[in-house]
Amino acid sequence: MRRIIILAEGLFDWHSGKTATGVIRYGKDAVVAVIDSTQAGQDVAQALEAEIGRGIPVVRDINEALQYQPDALLIGIAPLGGLLPETWRWQLLTAIEAGLAIINGLHVFLSEDKELSDAAEKHGVTIWDVRRPPDRKRVAMFTPHRPGSHTILMVGSDCATGKMTVALELDREAQRRGLSSTFLATGQTGIIIANNGLPVDRIISDFEAGLVEEIVLDACNQYDWVFVEGQGALNHPGYSPVTLGLLHGAMPDAMIFSHKVGALTIEGYEHCTLPSLNRLIEMNEEAVSWLRPERSSKVVALSLITHPLPEQAARDAIKRVEDETGLPATDVVRFGAGILMDALSSSLHTP
Amino acid sequence: MRRIIILAEGLFDWHSGKTATGVIRYGKDAVVAVIDSTQAGQDVAQALEAEIGRGIPVVRDINEALQYQPDALLIGIAPLGGLLPETWRWQLLTAIEAGLAIINGLHVFLSEDKELSDAAEKHGVTIWDVRRPPDRKRVAMFTPHRPGSHTILMVGSDCATGKMTVALELDREAQRRGLSSTFLATGQTGIIIANNGLPVDRIISDFEAGLVEEIVLDACNQYDWVFVEGQGALNHPGYSPVTLGLLHGAMPDAMIFSHKVGALTIEGYEHCTLPSLNRLIEMNEEAVSWLRPERSSKVVALSLITHPLPEQAARDAIKRVEDETGLPATDVVRFGAGILMDALSSSLHTP
Repeated sequence: MRRIIILAEGLFDWHSGKTATGVIRYGKDAVVAVIDSTQAGQDVAQALEAEIGRGIPVVRDINEALQYQPDALLIGIAPLGGLLPETWRWQLLTAIEAGLAIINGLHVFLSEDKELSDAAEKHGVTIWDVRRPPDRKRVAMFTPHRPGSHTILMVGSDCATGKMTVALELDREAQRRGLSSTFLATGQTGIIIANNGLPVDRIISDFEAGLVEEIVLDACNQYDWVFVEGQGALNHPGYSPVTLGLLHGAMPDAMIFSHKVGALTIEGYEHCTLPSLNRLIEMNEEAVSWLRPERSSKVVALSLITHPLPEQAARDAIKRVEDETGLPATDVVRFGAGILMDALSSSLHTP
Repeated sequence: MRRIIILAEGLFDWHSGKTATGVIRYGKDAVVAVIDSTQAGQDVAQALEAEIGRGIPVVRDINEALQYQPDALLIGIAPLGGLLPETWRWQLLTAIEAGLAIINGLHVFLSEDKELSDAAEKHGVTIWDVRRPPDRKRVAMFTPHRPGSHTILMVGSDCATGKMTVALELDREAQRRGLSSTFLATGQTGIIIANNGLPVDRIISDFEAGLVEEIVLDACNQYDWVFVEGQGALNHPGYSPVTLGLLHGAMPDAMIFSHKVGALTIEGYEHCTLPSLNRLIEMNEEAVSWLRPERSSKVVALSLITHPLPEQAARDAIKRVEDETGLPATDVVRFGAGILMDALSSSLHTP
């Protein structure tokens, strides 16, 4: 288990710090400090106003963070434009000089930054650009999965509807039940948590389905349950091809649909109204049927983000979604993934 | 008008020479010779057993081709794997030394080949890697097109169903009718023919719809009719994300559906049966409605490849498709694009 510090300068919150909070919540490594000078002196739970990260200090800068004996520094936020803010450079150089590995989830590849890569080489540390896609080319073959394996894809109404979280919670729940199970990461936070995976949004379109199929086939040969992190949404104006490539590459046996309660439009596209949940569910089922009309893949349950609501309002909202769709629903962060796993097991006729 | 020679060594035929035959048929430049030592001594029409390229000689090698005073050499075939066969290298070097520009449609970028790029620099010629995607990042904004403009997307049942040809023929037909019209290229052959365009299959998934939207908006501001070359198929196991990105980036007002008469499975995927034409048409209409439920985009006519059939059998096949779908159909290579343009004009209420 490594000791990680997270650089989240000025942006350590639920919205901008998706990678930071994901790693704190689900990572296998110990997070020993978070760097954000604007919130220094608090702990993570105070800074996030939430029940995670109690006792993990938020510190001013890398010099203060080094007292916690870290092994690695993770860049845990996505600044606008995806570039490295020049004001962070000295902190990264200081980390490298102190022998820390760098884990980078930014769009820009830091291993291609001459000053940083020279420093890394000199001090014998690695820079891991999590978003770097594989060099390989592979076109999908539409190869059947191992009989007895179950591929479950997370889909949803938009980006940031909790697809990674529900896949991770389902994997935990399956393992709790003694099932053979794995989580397949497809985005930078998931990849950092799982320590492997495929950054699907950075793959050339021609090879996206093929590279997804490759990792899914491999996982299906090793595990009975494969929970694939979803990306984007078929109804998203910008990212729909990423979503379809993932769907046609994974060719799921069943799907879980994720939605943020109360969302009416695609985030950032206020002129793009969300269709009804039933219509959104139907779209994903249709898209599977384009390739495999003879065997359908159904959305069998919903996972909702009810976060800003108090508990009773959350339960009411979940009940309304269940009535609207005729499917079981829950908020996995609040109530666990048990009923989703029940729905999957019964729909796939597996004890 | 440039004088072009086409390198198609060993592979100058209808199947492997899609780029070569496309440029001979539709290019604005004059093709003055084709290099294929296995068919040297014939003319293009004889080699292809078709009515195009009569009088254009097929020659043994670059040395023989140079007598026709070419300005540029086009690599007009796609060898397996997309790499440059090492046996072609001397011919390219000879061409560069003779002052010819190189137009390269291969997957591999020849401007990154040290020997070739050094030679090009020394002799002051350019190497154009047609498949090189733009460096820009752009996420689609779902911006409405200029009112009065008509964006028409070619879709189809598979790759190689004639989407580029029908877009080019529609553009010609529209111009013949005095309409303001353009062809938007999205694949290497179309880009070579149009001398610009977007190689959509080489774009990172996240930015495909956005970069397509950008060129479509630009074209809609300049022309009343924009005919967008299609790629792949929504029911293609490997390339469906490319197709969806193009569809959601272009957000067409209407579509033309292309199909090769008699095809029953996806080419190269004999386990992947084609759905009925009506179902295939419905898929494309559905995918537009995911983003824009309030205004549908319809397939208004079909373009068929009837190539191996004699003329009466072709007419019978077209009639059967018209009966099956209730839509007008034709083979644009045999019978022109007139009825497709009629269908578009009447469905979009334009004289």
